[in-house]
Amino acid sequence: MRPTDVLKPGSTIGILGGGQLGRMLALAAARLGLHCHIYSPEKDSGAFEVARAFTRADYEDEAALAKFAAAVDVITYEFENIPAATAAFLSKRKPVHPNPKVLETTQDRLVEKNFISALKIPVAPYAPVHSAAQLANGIEKLGLPAVLKTTTMGYDGKGQIKIMPGDDANAAWRSLKNKPCVLEGFVNFQREVSVIAARSADGKVECFEVTENDHQNHILKTSTVPAKVTDETAKEAERIAAKIAKALDYVGVLGVEMFVVKVKGKQALMVNEIAPRVHNSGHWTLDGATVSQFEQHIRAVAGWPLAKPLRLGRKVQMTNLIGDEVHDLAPWLTLPGTSLHLYGKPDARAGRKMGHVTRVWPAK
Amino acid sequence: MRPTDVLKPGSTIGILGGGQLGRMLALAAARLGLHCHIYSPEKDSGAFEVARAFTRADYEDEAALAKFAAAVDVITYEFENIPAATAAFLSKRKPVHPNPKVLETTQDRLVEKNFISALKIPVAPYAPVHSAAQLANGIEKLGLPAVLKTTTMGYDGKGQIKIMPGDDANAAWRSLKNKPCVLEGFVNFQREVSVIAARSADGKVECFEVTENDHQNHILKTSTVPAKVTDETAKEAERIAAKIAKALDYVGVLGVEMFVVKVKGKQALMVNEIAPRVHNSGHWTLDGATVSQFEQHIRAVAGWPLAKPLRLGRKVQMTNLIGDEVHDLAPWLTLPGTSLHLYGKPDARAGRKMGHVTRVWPAK
Repeated sequence: MRPTDVLKPGSTIGILGGGQLGRMLALAAARLGLHCHIYSPEKDSGAFEVARAFTRADYEDEAALAKFAAAVDVITYEFENIPAATAAFLSKRKPVHPNPKVLETTQDRLVEKNFISALKIPVAPYAPVHSAAQLANGIEKLGLPAVLKTTTMGYDGKGQIKIMPGDDANAAWRSLKNKPCVLEGFVNFQREVSVIAARSADGKVECFEVTENDHQNHILKTSTVPAKVTDETAKEAERIAAKIAKALDYVGVLGVEMFVVKVKGKQALMVNEIAPRVHNSGHWTLDGATVSQFEQHIRAVAGWPLAKPLRLGRKVQMTNLIGDEVHDLAPWLTLPGTSLHLYGKPDARAGRKMGHVTRVWPAK
Repeated sequence: MRPTDVLKPGSTIGILGGGQLGRMLALAAARLGLHCHIYSPEKDSGAFEVARAFTRADYEDEAALAKFAAAVDVITYEFENIPAATAAFLSKRKPVHPNPKVLETTQDRLVEKNFISALKIPVAPYAPVHSAAQLANGIEKLGLPAVLKTTTMGYDGKGQIKIMPGDDANAAWRSLKNKPCVLEGFVNFQREVSVIAARSADGKVECFEVTENDHQNHILKTSTVPAKVTDETAKEAERIAAKIAKALDYVGVLGVEMFVVKVKGKQALMVNEIAPRVHNSGHWTLDGATVSQFEQHIRAVAGWPLAKPLRLGRKVQMTNLIGDEVHDLAPWLTLPGTSLHLYGKPDARAGRKMGHVTRVWPAK
């Protein structure tokens, strides 16, 4: 981004995707006096109602994309499965942040893991699976249990299957339609953590503090700060996130999920996954920090300086409201220090992220 | 409000007025999964772009008002100068909170001061001015300097004139077109404070802590917590705000401005003014408390329980950005712990509130 690309208040940010992440980005942009234009193929996109304008059209609709690009000053996205052709089409017309090459890296688990490995950053053990022979080799190398995941399009536990000792590995692969896969070895981790990092157009990086995450049924359930990691581990986690952001020439917010493991009696880190966007494990920053991940992302894509995030409270915990948990709000509404966020989704389907709550324990 | 009037997420709140207060109310409602429909006669209303729907029409347009009422579940307002007929028309169709009788009391400075006095709450000294004789009597009673204010429609220093010793008082009144006025005696205050109180449909009250306010050119410049008042004064201020809210059978957030004076060596309070709405001196709660005044207001009008507000940080200060101060944002963007809020107004006219910043000093 050139210095001339610093957006003035009143400029318009185009956002691809209209789910809760787009919605919370739009709310953050509005606070800063920036308009948003949401592009999403889905009706009832929760982001539509909090943006100045929206386009409901498919990602392949070039006429709609061209009109969208003409109406905005800069373009960003709320999820990583934007078709490559869409990103390429748009980036010829307006700046797209993070740059579309990031999508090429992160849309494919294997490309992503190879990319991180090449940076000499430890990655959870993995093996490519493009053939039955590779599957057998992978199991030989990583042992069982292991998880077989399609290289593309998986999230929240979709597109993956666990292989236990004695299971028919080939049958497992067939259940994923023999798509290109990655086999991920079992990691005996102490805890799961993530770092939400923001990188500005001029290359500065600000990390939110390391967050500890708990999953239920492959879906994030809680994120808590401070995480139970040593200062050394926390610093290393931030260093890893910053290194990845720099290597991707990243502008915006990214989430890096990591495992904390014990190696020779000491904590060590292994990267699990990169999310090239604001991330569920950073939702606590809306209420528990002096700047949110959403505002940091908007600042970065607008060419504005990043804020230095400071935690508010001695402890902060975010809990996702999944499926029909959203129907039982009463206890949250009166719990001291607790903020409710609902995403405006009409149907509380099982496994669907409907909202979240954040509890902040103020410092004494 | 009956228990059946507890709104479900997905319900729609109608808001009269589309300025920054309506805008911040709409942003708070969106977080809670409630839709907003803004009604405002002004084009470029900043609230339009963050609400699911808006109506641009005059407050006298009964067809538009009827359609608006039919489209929403409950109605509230962001400012006190809603025409009485508009409020009456709407309240026959949908619940209006705070109730329209509140407007009758607060739209007229004299009615308001008489109302507060009748509650045995100290009010800054005042006298009615409907005739030259009353003006002379008022000056006799209160002394000079004093401020002559029209009983209706004044705000931010508009509709008022200061009378100094030796001034031609009748000429001053003529400059206000001899409208009905209130003469306000000079109060030698230690400081100006306010209490932002929320009252729920079931009569519970939650106050934000007393806020200390500084004005420049009759416009609020900064609000700071904690205020420099004794614990006793703080408790008394909250007691006064709660008493006023109860007497008005109030549902929603109201601001009560008070002077802290020294009487016989001790701090005492005098009420200056009531604002039957969210209030500029409560903007700090967006970043400096576990719940904002905007969310409290939405909770109240939705029939939801209020949250217990806890301060975040050892000190919080809100600074208004007035007129072209909005063009010098760079220092605020990098000041640690500082959040920027812009209201999306196109013209930075002199004296116009364009945005605000809040600085939070986190506790150690």
